[in-house]
Amino acid sequence: MKIIDLTQTLSEKTPVAPVKTCFTRIVQARYEHMYRIDDINLCTGIGTHMDAPLHFDPNGCAIDEIPLEKCHGDACVLHLKDKVGDNIDYGVSAEDVLAFEKEHGKVPKGSHFLVHTGWDRFWDTDKFCPTNAEGGCNFPGILEDAAKLLFERGVTSVGIDSMGIDQGINPKFPAHVVFLKNNILLTENLANLEKVPPTGAKIWMFPLKIEGAPEAPIRAVAIL
Amino acid sequence: MKIIDLTQTLSEKTPVAPVKTCFTRIVQARYEHMYRIDDINLCTGIGTHMDAPLHFDPNGCAIDEIPLEKCHGDACVLHLKDKVGDNIDYGVSAEDVLAFEKEHGKVPKGSHFLVHTGWDRFWDTDKFCPTNAEGGCNFPGILEDAAKLLFERGVTSVGIDSMGIDQGINPKFPAHVVFLKNNILLTENLANLEKVPPTGAKIWMFPLKIEGAPEAPIRAVAIL
Repeated sequence: MKIIDLTQTLSEKTPVAPVKTCFTRIVQARYEHMYRIDDINLCTGIGTHMDAPLHFDPNGCAIDEIPLEKCHGDACVLHLKDKVGDNIDYGVSAEDVLAFEKEHGKVPKGSHFLVHTGWDRFWDTDKFCPTNAEGGCNFPGILEDAAKLLFERGVTSVGIDSMGIDQGINPKFPAHVVFLKNNILLTENLANLEKVPPTGAKIWMFPLKIEGAPEAPIRAVAIL
Repeated sequence: MKIIDLTQTLSEKTPVAPVKTCFTRIVQARYEHMYRIDDINLCTGIGTHMDAPLHFDPNGCAIDEIPLEKCHGDACVLHLKDKVGDNIDYGVSAEDVLAFEKEHGKVPKGSHFLVHTGWDRFWDTDKFCPTNAEGGCNFPGILEDAAKLLFERGVTSVGIDSMGIDQGINPKFPAHVVFLKNNILLTENLANLEKVPPTGAKIWMFPLKIEGAPEAPIRAVAIL
């Protein structure tokens, strides 16, 4: 059994979208009484994290109410790194999903669909999610037609290695809406998807159990 | 496959030791722009969490440096709920570990040794870790002789369902020292150990990947 860490490291340098709060830390005990203790402040949707339906739906399920059975299972990985290239505004289309299916068969009901754009290689750079003139930021994401197709396939979750499921340039979040209003879990800022084959891997991604939270950090892993 | 959640829920009501910072939250976006966003502030050693060697050893491994291979494996569960009863100062002894071995065989090298004191049933009450006249607080923990025996057995991690690995009344943390100075991982505030058999279960407990942190919250699960 091989475990691949799909998680970015949380630190003061972790990139965040303009609307979100950065990670900060206070080291409040430094071995004066034998131990070190750190306090941290963060947005629950920072770094590699999961969105619960509550993130976009006031009546949706919160992160601590998600059944653990929905947080692991078979992974499909759509490898688009070469096609995305350096196109920061790339939109993953239904056509991209259909091309995956042509090669690997229909996306199975209940599976976890992960999009490898290759954007995680920019994590530590200004290219990961640069702010733009409209006050937003840019990064690749999933188009509405692809979101609707994945909903039709009955996937349990959808993940991506960029800052967000929707393209940064789209302020209407159509993919978030399609997924979260239909109880499909989302994971963002995944890492190392390059190392996961298109089919055959399992994913484990149990969110931090924060009462009534719309999002939570996860330690996501793939198992080969 | 059955998954048992070994994790307490993090909230404003989560009990903490006097030296640690409580969980607080600010809801900083309430669907004004379609989404809800929460910010949280917490001690990295709050709720169900893992201690890295760095917690007690300035030269020890930090939480993000722990190999994932050490964060899952075979679990041994020492069921002491009936013996501990209401004794808040119960100390788990080498004799208790040897009694486990008499019934279930030697604790295997590399396994994860979990102590079920039953104290998780007081999580939501003042009995979980009441403060005392010395400014500390009381809860059951593991005695130094048991810690040394488990070190000899070569366990990978040790967990407990009370606030700490050491008894609350012991300000010298002998069990923490034995374990963390020897790279044995610790988990505290586990839940639901009652549902896990003495042998045969697997545990998964991947810590939040916080750069250079001494501790981190985990979503721990047992798999039957």
